[in-house]
Amino acid sequence: MRTVNVQLGERSYPIYIGEGLLQQAGSYLEKHQLSKQSPLLIVTDEKVADPYLGILEQSLTASGFKVVTAIVGSGETSKSLSVFEAVMTKAIEGGLDRKSAVIALGGGVVGDLAGFVAGTYMRGIRFVQMPTTVLAHDSSVGGKVAINHPLAKNMIGVFHQPELVLYDLSTLKTLPAREVYAGLAEMVKHGLIWDREFAYWCLEHAEELKSVDMQAMGYGLEKGCSIKAAVVSKDERENDLRAILNLGHTIGHAIEAVAGYGEIIHGEAISIGMVGSALIGEALGAEPGLVDTTREMLQSLGLPTVLPEHLSVDRIMTAMMHDKKFLEGQMTFVVPLEIGKVEINRNVDYDLVRRTVELLKKEV
Amino acid sequence: MRTVNVQLGERSYPIYIGEGLLQQAGSYLEKHQLSKQSPLLIVTDEKVADPYLGILEQSLTASGFKVVTAIVGSGETSKSLSVFEAVMTKAIEGGLDRKSAVIALGGGVVGDLAGFVAGTYMRGIRFVQMPTTVLAHDSSVGGKVAINHPLAKNMIGVFHQPELVLYDLSTLKTLPAREVYAGLAEMVKHGLIWDREFAYWCLEHAEELKSVDMQAMGYGLEKGCSIKAAVVSKDERENDLRAILNLGHTIGHAIEAVAGYGEIIHGEAISIGMVGSALIGEALGAEPGLVDTTREMLQSLGLPTVLPEHLSVDRIMTAMMHDKKFLEGQMTFVVPLEIGKVEINRNVDYDLVRRTVELLKKEV
Repeated sequence: MRTVNVQLGERSYPIYIGEGLLQQAGSYLEKHQLSKQSPLLIVTDEKVADPYLGILEQSLTASGFKVVTAIVGSGETSKSLSVFEAVMTKAIEGGLDRKSAVIALGGGVVGDLAGFVAGTYMRGIRFVQMPTTVLAHDSSVGGKVAINHPLAKNMIGVFHQPELVLYDLSTLKTLPAREVYAGLAEMVKHGLIWDREFAYWCLEHAEELKSVDMQAMGYGLEKGCSIKAAVVSKDERENDLRAILNLGHTIGHAIEAVAGYGEIIHGEAISIGMVGSALIGEALGAEPGLVDTTREMLQSLGLPTVLPEHLSVDRIMTAMMHDKKFLEGQMTFVVPLEIGKVEINRNVDYDLVRRTVELLKKEV
Repeated sequence: MRTVNVQLGERSYPIYIGEGLLQQAGSYLEKHQLSKQSPLLIVTDEKVADPYLGILEQSLTASGFKVVTAIVGSGETSKSLSVFEAVMTKAIEGGLDRKSAVIALGGGVVGDLAGFVAGTYMRGIRFVQMPTTVLAHDSSVGGKVAINHPLAKNMIGVFHQPELVLYDLSTLKTLPAREVYAGLAEMVKHGLIWDREFAYWCLEHAEELKSVDMQAMGYGLEKGCSIKAAVVSKDERENDLRAILNLGHTIGHAIEAVAGYGEIIHGEAISIGMVGSALIGEALGAEPGLVDTTREMLQSLGLPTVLPEHLSVDRIMTAMMHDKKFLEGQMTFVVPLEIGKVEINRNVDYDLVRRTVELLKKEV
């Protein structure tokens, strides 16, 4: 069992990473002194509920906890105000009080939705994350929770840190390969922004990671969470430093928006976006070979590095403009200097970004 | 001009109280370094908009601020998820960003709604309160903001402190008398829980307060805000001490619920509730004459002290049970010991509460 401590003063919390942790959920929640009088609300989605909800409920009730459940549809559409209201109804009808906690059992969508419920029910109650995807190692650190407004993603949210994160590696074994690889994009991103050695470790252990080897995956998630925790500890509310976590995300979000959500999934889009960032970095004088190494790392993890031909460069540029980070022809980007080191550059030229997006269509 | 400083560490903020402050809003916002690049969203209701929105907008635009407005219906129904979503839409369409602020121009409903928008838009942006009722002196201190769920009031919310509160006394001159008196209930409550001298001051200056004399009202609001600020500073997130602010509210909420919201307004209900608390206090050995003095103070401020005959004691008791503070026949109450001093009593007997509610029907 591995533990990462996220240091945030009185809001600090541990991330427990290991196999079979869902079966032991009851004792972990006991250890963290969650109330047995006040009901717990488990929020999960229909895909996760089938294999794992029973295991979790059994462990919790065996330890004497009272449990209420809310099962939502899987996918981004559950981050809506109407699903939020429905989960709130479950919480009220289930009798949750100020000493209750909300448990997110699932991936990023469930974590975001359940976290926003926990952050706003009676002005905030306790929150526990139990991620079941590789990608969720990223969202389980940092306390950013949100739902979508019809006009914009993640527009309605709060910062709400969990009491603990229980990361049961066993749940990752049944993930589709494509989702595993997409999650590895965020893992290697943590190496690319902060830890050269870890980025190369991901490359060297790519096959083990892709096949969800418990040892490699455990270490990779531990490192990924640790790096994110280090960044977040220094900048909890995203004033400046925390922005480096967005490496590849400006181009990536635009690709997702233009391709239509789901066509290219988040991890794939930011993989292509990180190649774009590397191209911008090299154009601005980063270490030689940066682009090739970045591509090699991403490809080894089963990730795409080329922008599909049918996606219009114009539309991607327009989507980026809507991101509102352009100011007078200049754009803020996370730009790599070398593998493991980036800087925030607020003066990236529009034309350079456009040329970069064009270059992303070229197979190398 | 009077200033109350609410001490909450890095979330501290001032409350400015005086006449004609709306006309000077632009310079106050400048002084607090709100952004002139990022639009401000003014949330107000249809009743307040007519006399005051123009004055505020003019002051802000004259100082170079960009302004977007959202006018909601007046009354509790605007604290719904659908109105919340509509205000969020205004914010997004108006181009609010992380450096924007939301301004609440109005009473408690507008403050609660706008505060929850500010607390959740892009995970929290700045918030400015401009109260236009006497009652809002209470809600403008403490950072509790919330909207209603169809099943329960104030169930969805956060703690979100304002940057500043601008309390323009001139807006109180046009309030209906009944609303002024209801607001005075919360004012004298602050004396009853914390400051004997101030409670007696309210009694002595009742006529000036009722007629909205600027001098008396300014002092009363300053004291009321100061006392609430002192309590909140010691217990920002309502762990224990802060509960004393609920004097009269347990019975009061039940009266509101049974009478139907609007029939007996909040300040009136807690006035009757505070007489109830005094009766419980005397039964448990508080200073002699406590009930008579409490009644005299409330009556002098134009407030009811007798429960209307048609309201069923059974239904009031049931409504209190739903408040979920009963535990095994015992109830938690804020109980007066003397004028200006209360305690939290977690063992108030059910039968004593019932007898008290019955007694509240008796004219004295």
